[in-house]
Amino acid sequence: MTLSVSEARERFAAARVARLATADAGGRPHLVPVVFVVDGERVYSVVDAKPKQTVELRRLRNVASNPSVALLVDHYDDADWGALWWVRAEGAGRVLDPSSDEEASRAVHLLRAKYPQQRAVGAVLAVDVERWSGWSAAAA
Amino acid sequence: MTLSVSEARERFAAARVARLATADAGGRPHLVPVVFVVDGERVYSVVDAKPKQTVELRRLRNVASNPSVALLVDHYDDADWGALWWVRAEGAGRVLDPSSDEEASRAVHLLRAKYPQQRAVGAVLAVDVERWSGWSAAAA
Repeated sequence: MTLSVSEARERFAAARVARLATADAGGRPHLVPVVFVVDGERVYSVVDAKPKQTVELRRLRNVASNPSVALLVDHYDDADWGALWWVRAEGAGRVLDPSSDEEASRAVHLLRAKYPQQRAVGAVLAVDVERWSGWSAAAA
Repeated sequence: MTLSVSEARERFAAARVARLATADAGGRPHLVPVVFVVDGERVYSVVDAKPKQTVELRRLRNVASNPSVALLVDHYDDADWGALWWVRAEGAGRVLDPSSDEEASRAVHLLRAKYPQQRAVGAVLAVDVERWSGWSAAAA
């Protein structure tokens, strides 16, 4: 069954890991796992790299040339396919510098609250979500 | 640390779920979880939809207009970020019809051997992998 937008957002926000898809200017997709935080209609993640390396990272290069991104959270259970579900967030990405941007500092703060083990110091990727969608094998 | 190609392929093949990223002709990425099987340098998944619905599925429409795809397998452990790893397969997708294509029938057979619960009957997505890459937080 299709999940409602609010149910989709809630399940997404509660998850601990998501997968981030970006694509370069030629439409070649790229995928990485990310830890993240949801703040309203925004999803934040932070790159674990020194500032000079940051600009070289494919996900950030991709967002700079093509802001369309998708994020996915899913639940898989080999023993019970009736329990499977997934939620997708689609939107536009922006790269923020945490040393000079207030929104980025706030995102880093939120990320450290969700993940006390978070020590990443690089650029912040903000995604302005335009669409939440989701599916569950089970009825709610 | 970077994983070797053989280690990356081996970890990928042993996983039970992967995430598939495609992008449309305009470079807008799309993401879904998939069960899959690795056969040499190919990754197969099957769409759980009736043939007439199949052509409408975004992942297949995307592959038809833009064959570049990426697949990701990752391990996340909230309690031990030292155990994190991921593997990515990048390549070109092809959509096969299991009712008329021998490679597709073989893929369905391999998928049912890996997942006895597999009942999907739709099109098969074959990905010819051009690059395996991976990373692990821990030394091997």
